Amino acid sequence: MGSGIHATMQDRQLTVNSLFQHGAAIYSNSRIAAFDGHQVRHTTYGETASRVTRLAAGLRRLGIRPGDPVGTFCWNTVEHLEAYFAVPGMGAVLHTLNFRLFPDQLSYIVNHAEDRAIVVDASLVPLLAKAAAKFKTVKHYLVVGATSENLPGECVGYEEILAAEEAHFAWPALDERSAAAMCYTSGTTGNPKGVVYSHRSIYLHSMAVNSANCAGLCENDRLLAAPSMFHANSWGMLHAAWLAGSDCVFPNRFLQAEPLCRLIAEERPSVAGGVPAIWMDVLRYADSHTVDLSSLRIVLCAGSAVPRSLIEGFQERHGLRILQLWGMTETSPFATVAYPPKGCLASEEIEYRAKAGRTVAGVELRIVDDNNQVAPADGESIGEIQARGPWITGSYYGEDAAERFHDGWLRTGDVGCMDSLGYVQIKDRAKDVIKSGGEWVSSIDLENAIMAHPDVVEAAVIGVPDPRWDERPLACVVLKKGSNVGSSELCVFLNGRVVKWWIPERWAFLAEIPKTSVGKFDKKRLRAEQAQGLITVQDSAQA
Amino acid sequence: MGSGIHATMQDRQLTVNSLFQHGAAIYSNSRIAAFDGHQVRHTTYGETASRVTRLAAGLRRLGIRPGDPVGTFCWNTVEHLEAYFAVPGMGAVLHTLNFRLFPDQLSYIVNHAEDRAIVVDASLVPLLAKAAAKFKTVKHYLVVGATSENLPGECVGYEEILAAEEAHFAWPALDERSAAAMCYTSGTTGNPKGVVYSHRSIYLHSMAVNSANCAGLCENDRLLAAPSMFHANSWGMLHAAWLAGSDCVFPNRFLQAEPLCRLIAEERPSVAGGVPAIWMDVLRYADSHTVDLSSLRIVLCAGSAVPRSLIEGFQERHGLRILQLWGMTETSPFATVAYPPKGCLASEEIEYRAKAGRTVAGVELRIVDDNNQVAPADGESIGEIQARGPWITGSYYGEDAAERFHDGWLRTGDVGCMDSLGYVQIKDRAKDVIKSGGEWVSSIDLENAIMAHPDVVEAAVIGVPDPRWDERPLACVVLKKGSNVGSSELCVFLNGRVVKWWIPERWAFLAEIPKTSVGKFDKKRLRAEQAQGLITVQDSAQA
Repeated sequence: MGSGIHATMQDRQLTVNSLFQHGAAIYSNSRIAAFDGHQVRHTTYGETASRVTRLAAGLRRLGIRPGDPVGTFCWNTVEHLEAYFAVPGMGAVLHTLNFRLFPDQLSYIVNHAEDRAIVVDASLVPLLAKAAAKFKTVKHYLVVGATSENLPGECVGYEEILAAEEAHFAWPALDERSAAAMCYTSGTTGNPKGVVYSHRSIYLHSMAVNSANCAGLCENDRLLAAPSMFHANSWGMLHAAWLAGSDCVFPNRFLQAEPLCRLIAEERPSVAGGVPAIWMDVLRYADSHTVDLSSLRIVLCAGSAVPRSLIEGFQERHGLRILQLWGMTETSPFATVAYPPKGCLASEEIEYRAKAGRTVAGVELRIVDDNNQVAPADGESIGEIQARGPWITGSYYGEDAAERFHDGWLRTGDVGCMDSLGYVQIKDRAKDVIKSGGEWVSSIDLENAIMAHPDVVEAAVIGVPDPRWDERPLACVVLKKGSNVGSSELCVFLNGRVVKWWIPERWAFLAEIPKTSVGKFDKKRLRAEQAQGLITVQDSAQA
Repeated sequence: MGSGIHATMQDRQLTVNSLFQHGAAIYSNSRIAAFDGHQVRHTTYGETASRVTRLAAGLRRLGIRPGDPVGTFCWNTVEHLEAYFAVPGMGAVLHTLNFRLFPDQLSYIVNHAEDRAIVVDASLVPLLAKAAAKFKTVKHYLVVGATSENLPGECVGYEEILAAEEAHFAWPALDERSAAAMCYTSGTTGNPKGVVYSHRSIYLHSMAVNSANCAGLCENDRLLAAPSMFHANSWGMLHAAWLAGSDCVFPNRFLQAEPLCRLIAEERPSVAGGVPAIWMDVLRYADSHTVDLSSLRIVLCAGSAVPRSLIEGFQERHGLRILQLWGMTETSPFATVAYPPKGCLASEEIEYRAKAGRTVAGVELRIVDDNNQVAPADGESIGEIQARGPWITGSYYGEDAAERFHDGWLRTGDVGCMDSLGYVQIKDRAKDVIKSGGEWVSSIDLENAIMAHPDVVEAAVIGVPDPRWDERPLACVVLKKGSNVGSSELCVFLNGRVVKWWIPERWAFLAEIPKTSVGKFDKKRLRAEQAQGLITVQDSAQA
């Protein structure tokens, strides 16, 4: 005794299983609404838990063993949620597949992970079939819904699998550090890289999401699960919702403004998540139609920088609060959340809400400059943001990617600064940085300033070669239908909103900005198209 | 690769240190108000963090090593909070000492833990001095404030220790399963037993407290820290508050209704905690004085069964919500929380709020009957409540207490039932159970029913021998000043509120109910006094 006192606490593990069992036991009456494009089907946590148990038993019968990856190729559906719990619960690894990838990327990912089985929505079977011939390890396809298409393996009906099992399963005791789920980053350079979440990381992230300083999900909430379920576990929000007993609304593939607004009006979610692109569509739709968004207490926006105009537009015209968060697949994904600090003036709030925010408790961030020194948190010093914490990845699956880490910190690839209160502001992706005359132009700030113009739908800024300044910004703009705003008017608009020398001379008016498979501006493609002369550039000086 | 996929998450540890660093870095402007009986002193998280760092450095200079227990013998003060962070932060073990214990119990505990140093409030030095001669391992006393009394070791001024250090300390990297804090149960039978919290258990409990389904502490909250800081880390609420950046208000020793109401009116806390006894005093005071409790959004009540009349009285007469929780030193302490389930009728809410509640996410509970079988969650089957989870103790420090555990579950010593929604209702302490004619009488239900009478201040029910029924309940009642209500009127009042055969024939009217060192009814003492004929018992049939 005495020196070297040891703790007496039980060594209970934080697992997806324990999270699932809590929701199933305590919140069996919580409701789930699933939209299929025609109607909304209602079920409960209790019924879903019974199906999860059957699915786990069915997967074991198919020969899935602990540690085996099981893919999903599904929309945002309740069956997808069942896989979220059944697969890690039985000790296997949920591998959510992004159906927006090219077939070659998809087969690379499936083969790299060595998926043993794939749960696939019938409507996505044709898409999966394009890549499936190259799959080397997939033995079983569990098809949700009816399909006539064949896949090169054993195809079984998802419902048949469940119907064959009892609602009883001997859930294994799992180590919290074991693998629970994996997700490959879309990888605009090189091959996609796999991030493998542990049971522990999912559990802790769920607790963090449910803390009052973050989304604060509780039993009385109703979550609209709009973030793709193939992307960072739908931002971890469904795990968090289940732990809290929040009702869930699944929009399936219907994320366009009109069906989404209808679903919101009918199912009355209190919390929603989604990338800015979706909510910019909703805002435009809401500005010109009669909608009822009154049930929403907050909308969590992340995935790319949230335009200030989006936050202000919803706040001022619809009384709806957009909460910006920042993170990535590698960070589970939430690393920061942008509530304004207490005591700040109402007029200052927007300045904070338009930033990436402060760290979610559990995460540490630092800014590291070009000389590998930690930069001061002075709101000015710019550098790469590095992250550390129990739900931050420390490696990539089966990859030597040492260059993506530094002293145990993840190099996020985002460039920004941090102020004395810990507010992080993202200035650019490292690979999108524009250096003009040796000075740095923030493409994100510039895009935000342009998107504040009422006639601008979207704006993406890339660097293009310039004989005098090495590089200058090119503003690629999508205008509202019928608008004939030109570059000179936009330059006048920018005057005073950004430093003068940032104002682009080069403008391009496009029908749309190309997007990556997770809905971000695809600047790699924009740069390629620009280099190939596929983009018509106007010079504002000539306008 | 393939089979046996491993997680790629970083192995960051959940420590009191990381919790402390988060609050210090992100919420340096959060405020702390400390009442000293005369005035309120204001400080900030930033200033406090600097003092915590100095204290850690000072403790190291005094020779405190990792794993060493450091005692505290303090009121609810900001200096006590500094020790909460500095001691575990430097790798030592915070040992909060209950100053309401008898000197012999105190010296037993200090010697059993082998405390190396004790931080003591000057006003408590005389009390500590009564036991200190028997302390075998204590080398240093750090005295907060001025005292003329001597203690049998090296006495140093707390402020001198801090003044001698720089605000810099190389915080060690700690294993999350290592000991962070310890607390001895008051032990109404046998010697006090030590529970040792780990860094992990404190961190996880803090996250649980901050979840929206529990206290939901956030940056905009202001916590009145009324639960004793020597008792289960002030219910873990200060750790939770610091993690969330909530302002904190320290009432010192001034927990009487009048100064507490004044502090609430002046400092405007949004959340408070405390045992029912304190809030029953506040309710009586508020019913007869002009008070301003409007800042409080919720009051967390635990430590003993919360009388329904307390919940209803605050709700109906003051619009204040009392939230009941249940737990004990062994459970960190929160195991359940009594929010009503969603969708329940307003008229049913009180039924749920008067129960112990449902498990806090992370904890598992079960009811085990006399035959060691798990009883069904049917709202009727009675048994001992057993608990499991990462912040539930799995042993006692340096004690063989195997009889207190069962298959890895803690036997809580509380007897109760669980309904199909997971709501737990405590019926009795196992040792307080009353068996009358082979049937069981819930002393807690009976006490609640008696306390619902407007003239009753407190009521404690114990079992006394009865020639015909083996045991019958004796109701010990404290009446409001000036009331002359008698046992026959109380019997009439109980009619219809409890089953008829529960209604006591034996009544005792006392000036006060004896309390344990943590403020619970001391039924052991009541039983002893009754056995010795020290309690005057009236027979209601004779009244």
